[in-house]
Amino acid sequence: MAAVKINYPLLLTLGPDLTAELLDRVEVLPIADFKVADIDNTCKWIAKQAMEMGFEAIIAHPFVGYEKGLSGLFEVVSEEDGGVILVINMSHPGSKQFITPVAEELADFARENGADGVVAPATRPDEVTQARSWIGEDVLLLTPGIGAQGGKPGDAIAAGADFEIVGRAIYQADQPASSAKNLKKQMRSAGSE
Amino acid sequence: MAAVKINYPLLLTLGPDLTAELLDRVEVLPIADFKVADIDNTCKWIAKQAMEMGFEAIIAHPFVGYEKGLSGLFEVVSEEDGGVILVINMSHPGSKQFITPVAEELADFARENGADGVVAPATRPDEVTQARSWIGEDVLLLTPGIGAQGGKPGDAIAAGADFEIVGRAIYQADQPASSAKNLKKQMRSAGSE
Repeated sequence: MAAVKINYPLLLTLGPDLTAELLDRVEVLPIADFKVADIDNTCKWIAKQAMEMGFEAIIAHPFVGYEKGLSGLFEVVSEEDGGVILVINMSHPGSKQFITPVAEELADFARENGADGVVAPATRPDEVTQARSWIGEDVLLLTPGIGAQGGKPGDAIAAGADFEIVGRAIYQADQPASSAKNLKKQMRSAGSE
Repeated sequence: MAAVKINYPLLLTLGPDLTAELLDRVEVLPIADFKVADIDNTCKWIAKQAMEMGFEAIIAHPFVGYEKGLSGLFEVVSEEDGGVILVINMSHPGSKQFITPVAEELADFARENGADGVVAPATRPDEVTQARSWIGEDVLLLTPGIGAQGGKPGDAIAAGADFEIVGRAIYQADQPASSAKNLKKQMRSAGSE
């Protein structure tokens, strides 16, 4: 199974209208990787705009908390039958400073509030295994950091992830399509081991 | 002194081109309230696009950490002589869950990395006073939560803030201009007490 994640740099380059057009042609699950981290009123507007553009799921930061915070995002996304994906940890070294110490609490937050998926670092497969143990089997586990950031294709899948997220190793490759196919093969074989 | 802060809901409504046009006409400091919270590569792109649109400062979340995280944002913004403003706490009740416990560490992070300003909650003036004690006198202190969120105009200024941030109490007012003037008067008198 595949999904595509679009972040602000691409959205701001295309503008909202072209992004909506692009999403119209996408045949896999489109995820708004907006890393939403704001108060309820702002969360609501961002989530509404994402859903209107055609995104079916949105990524947010649970560290801003629920009450009058992510509550607004959950409200809007569930009205639209969209998915909420929460970052319980990140893939870069700096994330170990403030996020790793509370990653388990962020995972509890995700489970308690009915998140559809969580994000954990493919660059640190041990923490993927931990994340899986915290969230159980019913929450999707997405893991960024494959390629440019050093994560090896297949390692996070083998550690319990549902998705490995690849950016530059595809879009900066000389041949993006064959790079994607090659990565997929490596992930598949890790999944079946 | 006044500044204007534009967030994603407004940016996505206008689109990047109209936003740039708007910023061209703004006579006060324009701040990109993007609450950036991503890895270095994405931070860099977002910061570049914000500076290209005409923003002179950008708001980010230090919670994501520095190494290969906000490092990218600091790099780009300083190349453009822009300002970095870091959220060391937020104005909604949910922020007490994960952010308040590490607010002092986030303030240290802001000072150590040379942030130009920090954000702390006008809704909790005691925490504004704390924030001021942590950051010293040379870092700007911006405090959201006036009006719709319950903060009383002038209270955060009296507690040590440089700016109080108002959104809905102006843009949803029947007479936005007179509401803004009235709020300004209350903030001024608090500042001179």
